[in-house]
Amino acid sequence: MQFMRARATARLTRDGIKKVVIAHDKRFFSVDAFASRKWSGLTCLDVVEETPAVVLDENALIGNVEYMQHVADKHQVSLRPHVKTHKCTKIANLQREHGARGVTCSKPDEALVFLQAGFDTLVAYPIINKCTLQKFLERAEGRYDKLTLMVDSAQGVEVLFNVVNSLPRVEKLNVYMKVNVGLNRCGVQPDGALQLAKEIVARDKLSFQGIMSHAGQAYGASSKRDCERIAREESELMKTVRDTLRDAGISCNQVSVGCTLTELAREEFGHITEIRPGNYVFMDATPLTKGLITPEQVSLYVVASVISVNNQYAIIDAGSKVLSSDAGAHGSAGTGNYGTARTCSDSMYQIEKLSEEHGWIKLPRSHDLEIGDKVQIIPNHSCPVVNLTNSVLLLGKDRACETWEIDAFNKSHPRIKYAQ
Amino acid sequence: MQFMRARATARLTRDGIKKVVIAHDKRFFSVDAFASRKWSGLTCLDVVEETPAVVLDENALIGNVEYMQHVADKHQVSLRPHVKTHKCTKIANLQREHGARGVTCSKPDEALVFLQAGFDTLVAYPIINKCTLQKFLERAEGRYDKLTLMVDSAQGVEVLFNVVNSLPRVEKLNVYMKVNVGLNRCGVQPDGALQLAKEIVARDKLSFQGIMSHAGQAYGASSKRDCERIAREESELMKTVRDTLRDAGISCNQVSVGCTLTELAREEFGHITEIRPGNYVFMDATPLTKGLITPEQVSLYVVASVISVNNQYAIIDAGSKVLSSDAGAHGSAGTGNYGTARTCSDSMYQIEKLSEEHGWIKLPRSHDLEIGDKVQIIPNHSCPVVNLTNSVLLLGKDRACETWEIDAFNKSHPRIKYAQ
Repeated sequence: MQFMRARATARLTRDGIKKVVIAHDKRFFSVDAFASRKWSGLTCLDVVEETPAVVLDENALIGNVEYMQHVADKHQVSLRPHVKTHKCTKIANLQREHGARGVTCSKPDEALVFLQAGFDTLVAYPIINKCTLQKFLERAEGRYDKLTLMVDSAQGVEVLFNVVNSLPRVEKLNVYMKVNVGLNRCGVQPDGALQLAKEIVARDKLSFQGIMSHAGQAYGASSKRDCERIAREESELMKTVRDTLRDAGISCNQVSVGCTLTELAREEFGHITEIRPGNYVFMDATPLTKGLITPEQVSLYVVASVISVNNQYAIIDAGSKVLSSDAGAHGSAGTGNYGTARTCSDSMYQIEKLSEEHGWIKLPRSHDLEIGDKVQIIPNHSCPVVNLTNSVLLLGKDRACETWEIDAFNKSHPRIKYAQ
Repeated sequence: MQFMRARATARLTRDGIKKVVIAHDKRFFSVDAFASRKWSGLTCLDVVEETPAVVLDENALIGNVEYMQHVADKHQVSLRPHVKTHKCTKIANLQREHGARGVTCSKPDEALVFLQAGFDTLVAYPIINKCTLQKFLERAEGRYDKLTLMVDSAQGVEVLFNVVNSLPRVEKLNVYMKVNVGLNRCGVQPDGALQLAKEIVARDKLSFQGIMSHAGQAYGASSKRDCERIAREESELMKTVRDTLRDAGISCNQVSVGCTLTELAREEFGHITEIRPGNYVFMDATPLTKGLITPEQVSLYVVASVISVNNQYAIIDAGSKVLSSDAGAHGSAGTGNYGTARTCSDSMYQIEKLSEEHGWIKLPRSHDLEIGDKVQIIPNHSCPVVNLTNSVLLLGKDRACETWEIDAFNKSHPRIKYAQ
């Protein structure tokens, strides 16, 4: 329904009009993003010569970057995108040019790429290994003012303090404290937050910046309304923690939250100072099936070819080593398949299963798939798809193609050290 | 049970005895492989300093290489291991040194790495894209005598013939015809095999070498007995196809089959000339849960650390970007979890779910997991794990550690070409 309305609006306005903003149902996009529809849809099937190819539509990408920046600006919060989604400094530059104030990273090696490219970088991951932390901080020398680390346990504070103390060049290090707001992954329990915050502020060289959360349980939500509720509950819980800390004399410069689904659904921002969504630059089948976005907002897809056909299946050349075997973020219920394959004649087929290099399309009694046909697939989860490739093919706004390197690719494994 | 028996035997014999072979239940290993047990088991948790780490136990690796070569030698068939499992020329060299006559690859870019390293290389994948095939054959120049391609459709034969004809330097190209033996993925139906074989032999420059199959449906089998039956049925079907071709005057030099599960279970080889298992060098939870191997035969595992603990979960630093989210090969039923985490005190914990960089261990009421604890995990499916890393840490036979590069890594995406 929403999809149809959006399409109609775009068709009315796109001819000859550039950069006009159409707002509907709390979302907005530049006309450019809408105009890209045909390009990002079927035409790409003619452009991509070899498959499998991971393709990025620049118009949809910029539409997504603009949209989330608009959310941040409108609510006067900082945007610090999580770059584990794209691992690409070109895309991070695009986010920065549009107003993002820094980036969020998963792992030390990934963070170094963005630190070295001059980004204000948050490592949103508890580094509890002394050796890893020491090596990371040594390599980050000269950029400590642009770095923030996260802790969620007394052990983490202790390791951080000891390592920072052992490095004379570190004068002060910014620290966030992560709070568990219901995902039950990382984060201190709210009733333990004051005690842990005291542990941090008691240590010189550690500069307590505030609290952060990730309401990733939204990936298990069944609807947009559910995502709104989760965002509201996260916000209320973070306010309670902030107030408890303030009452004890500990101020939080930052109340940082972030998850694409909650930031697409959030209605009130209140005391929040920073958002950290990641997936929004690409989107995928997960926000789509929850009714949070329209298909045009997906900027990343996989183009594959039919390579074999039998009486039950058409086999395509995109398997789990291209699409990943993710059903959706956080292993959530997902879409029930590995994607829908759309042909140039606009037929749709379900990808039923994957082996490593093969995707299996279950054939209906009547079908028009032939060996050599190309198909376009929206991944279930775009983050692991990018993590499986060295580069993406950018379909530019001006219809020129370009290869963008995934330059922070495979930095998520710290180098191995060993005792012997 | 088997595990316990094997352990007992090893303990009785390992002291001071080298290269003694112990046979039981159709399997055999050098004592070295058994002697590595403690090393490959708990001791590694002390050796790995930084996590997550993908670790390869050289003793178990060599035991697996020796074992499959022994199967091949005993039955007088060639071993042409599928290298999509390891993507590592060092491991392929080890297989060659033990007697493997060549390698099997998935994709052209992957195949080029092994061709250039001097391996007799089969690309077990129908290349139906003219541009991809042309580029590949140009890059393979000078090595055509070591190359075999696979076709499973008339379209594939036509594309291959046209491209080969356009390249004057190709005098003759070896071709296998793939037969569908029940996986229903690639392969000509048995009743269409004669017609397709005629299409191949009718074309000069294409040298028909024989037929090949992959009974990957074994990954859906519930037991070793089921795997034996699937191997038997595959063998009978391939004999029928070979006889049909021979009766029509088309001889098959090669009857090539291969899948780790069928090669672990196969009882009779008969007319088979070549086997192409891949996963056997590492093994994983899939053959283990089917009762086809013992835990000591697994050579590849992931070492991770507990980074956060709450009242429901211990969180480890290995998520889907390390372990992959595969439940098992071909998306088969799998183990029902993402691995079992074994601690240095020999406690076992189930990994219930994964997010990208986090593994979730569901905590029982009483547990001994603390932040900083290291755990050892046997992956559900080792092939995609190696596809997610640049290198593995080899725990050597002599207890020295070494980093082995995954040098054919991420070659599974052909380079993108585009029309504009």
